[in-house]
Amino acid sequence: MTRPLALGIDIGGTNTKYGIVNRRGEIVTKGSMPTTGHATAHEYVNALRDQLQPLIDEAGHGNITGVGIGAPNGNFFTGEIAFAPNLPWRGVIPLAKMLNEALHLPCTLTNDANAATIGEMMYGAAKGMNDFVLVTLGTGLGSGFVANGKLIYGHDGFAGELGHLIAVRDGRMCGCGRRGCLETYCSATGIVLTAKEWLAQRNDATVLREHAGHLTSHMIHEAAEQGDAFALELFEFTGKILGQTLADVMVITSPEAFIFFGGLARAGELLLAPTRRHMENNMLNVFKNKVAFILSALPDADAAILGASALVW
Amino acid sequence: MTRPLALGIDIGGTNTKYGIVNRRGEIVTKGSMPTTGHATAHEYVNALRDQLQPLIDEAGHGNITGVGIGAPNGNFFTGEIAFAPNLPWRGVIPLAKMLNEALHLPCTLTNDANAATIGEMMYGAAKGMNDFVLVTLGTGLGSGFVANGKLIYGHDGFAGELGHLIAVRDGRMCGCGRRGCLETYCSATGIVLTAKEWLAQRNDATVLREHAGHLTSHMIHEAAEQGDAFALELFEFTGKILGQTLADVMVITSPEAFIFFGGLARAGELLLAPTRRHMENNMLNVFKNKVAFILSALPDADAAILGASALVW
Repeated sequence: MTRPLALGIDIGGTNTKYGIVNRRGEIVTKGSMPTTGHATAHEYVNALRDQLQPLIDEAGHGNITGVGIGAPNGNFFTGEIAFAPNLPWRGVIPLAKMLNEALHLPCTLTNDANAATIGEMMYGAAKGMNDFVLVTLGTGLGSGFVANGKLIYGHDGFAGELGHLIAVRDGRMCGCGRRGCLETYCSATGIVLTAKEWLAQRNDATVLREHAGHLTSHMIHEAAEQGDAFALELFEFTGKILGQTLADVMVITSPEAFIFFGGLARAGELLLAPTRRHMENNMLNVFKNKVAFILSALPDADAAILGASALVW
Repeated sequence: MTRPLALGIDIGGTNTKYGIVNRRGEIVTKGSMPTTGHATAHEYVNALRDQLQPLIDEAGHGNITGVGIGAPNGNFFTGEIAFAPNLPWRGVIPLAKMLNEALHLPCTLTNDANAATIGEMMYGAAKGMNDFVLVTLGTGLGSGFVANGKLIYGHDGFAGELGHLIAVRDGRMCGCGRRGCLETYCSATGIVLTAKEWLAQRNDATVLREHAGHLTSHMIHEAAEQGDAFALELFEFTGKILGQTLADVMVITSPEAFIFFGGLARAGELLLAPTRRHMENNMLNVFKNKVAFILSALPDADAAILGASALVW
């Protein structure tokens, strides 16, 4: 086992995944447990400690430099999870502090998209890049912005919430209470919502109609691959809103690449081709045909653990 | 004279201003010459050298650490001015290199808004801030983004073009060839354009009607100060578009302050009050009531020279 080691923890809405990772980004042990089913955050931390302690003992407590945690609504500056709509606990949870007390190891926390961004920069497609943007297209749309080789946390630790840029003025209602946020259109949830709206309003013949009650973005992806015109139009529409927004992002940080990650990104060119076309059509001249579109090079299952562990270094 | 010294040069569409500045940000000598009236960029550089050489000789060539230049469309990475619509020269001008050969001093160039941002960070309202955005509201809208204490140049040196974020989809025609760019609405030129459009379409009684042929943003400012309802509505409308856009900027870099600079910013609360109100109305919860609005603390006449000189340190 190459030392030193880091412990990476990815807290998702359903499961918590963890792994012990070496400096080269190799996961030497890993495991998972449910995030839900614990009465309080305190009981969750106790259960997590019971899972982690044997791994730490096996690796040798002294060999582990620290613990990195990625969590929705995690704040790097405070180590707290604040008002996470997809986690079972309400209010502000000082998770880094609680886990530090449980494990007697230094704990660093950030939001899940930022953790993935750091993972991508250290071990993935962004290795060696000083200016890039990671876009995670999952249930929501997360992002991490890197400029001058450093993640942009902003003055309060909450920067990089591209999913809540208002892409459509007076548009679709968002869970955040405002209208038209990018993630209400451009995410696995968003494309399914568009499909349901269109199915209710239009009469297209599409294989998706029979699945209307239990539609997933994966079904839309499969239908589009089979040439279903309705599904292809859904990707065109989603790519238009994403592309227009990325053209606006360019004028702010001018990244050399957008790196795409998450469930909806698996649709690949079905989504990226219209996104690129609409981005270039809306691009300020000086940025035209410059920025690369790259799919994440990290395996989905490991990226979050790797990213979280990379916080330690 | 406190040594070391830097030479700051601000190249504007009409005039070129320059000054010798010490490390404390005190301008010890300054002057200016017309930017226009030179047949070629080469002749302009020769004329500029003839103006600067006596100042350099007086200060002592060895006391001058370097030359910083702010220019529209200036690129920090290449030292070139590329396709500047407001300067007399076409194409790409390698100005840093030309001036280096003329003066035998190291020359660094960046765009004018970036130079102002660095000046503000070293000597102005942003002293000690690691995350802020400068917004210059002049003929156009320029910007400089600072994150983690460093100016964001982007991978190509062209980051920070907030004036060309598309604020109104399919909106007003912009000089860049696209539609709806922020600067077509939120700049001295933009507010005058809005006024002219409204005067042509509506019948409001306003003191501005008699000046319709030669309207300036300063006249709108004065009319609003006197309570002219039409002029106040112009600031409300301009502030709405600016405020909505700044709410979107927040989710990307989460600055602690927006610092406003330039002719239209002199309208102060007439513009900033509606801008702040519309920004907060469109703000993601986690950013509400956090970001400061600050007017530049640097005297307009000197800010550009100070900013340019600060490139040297």
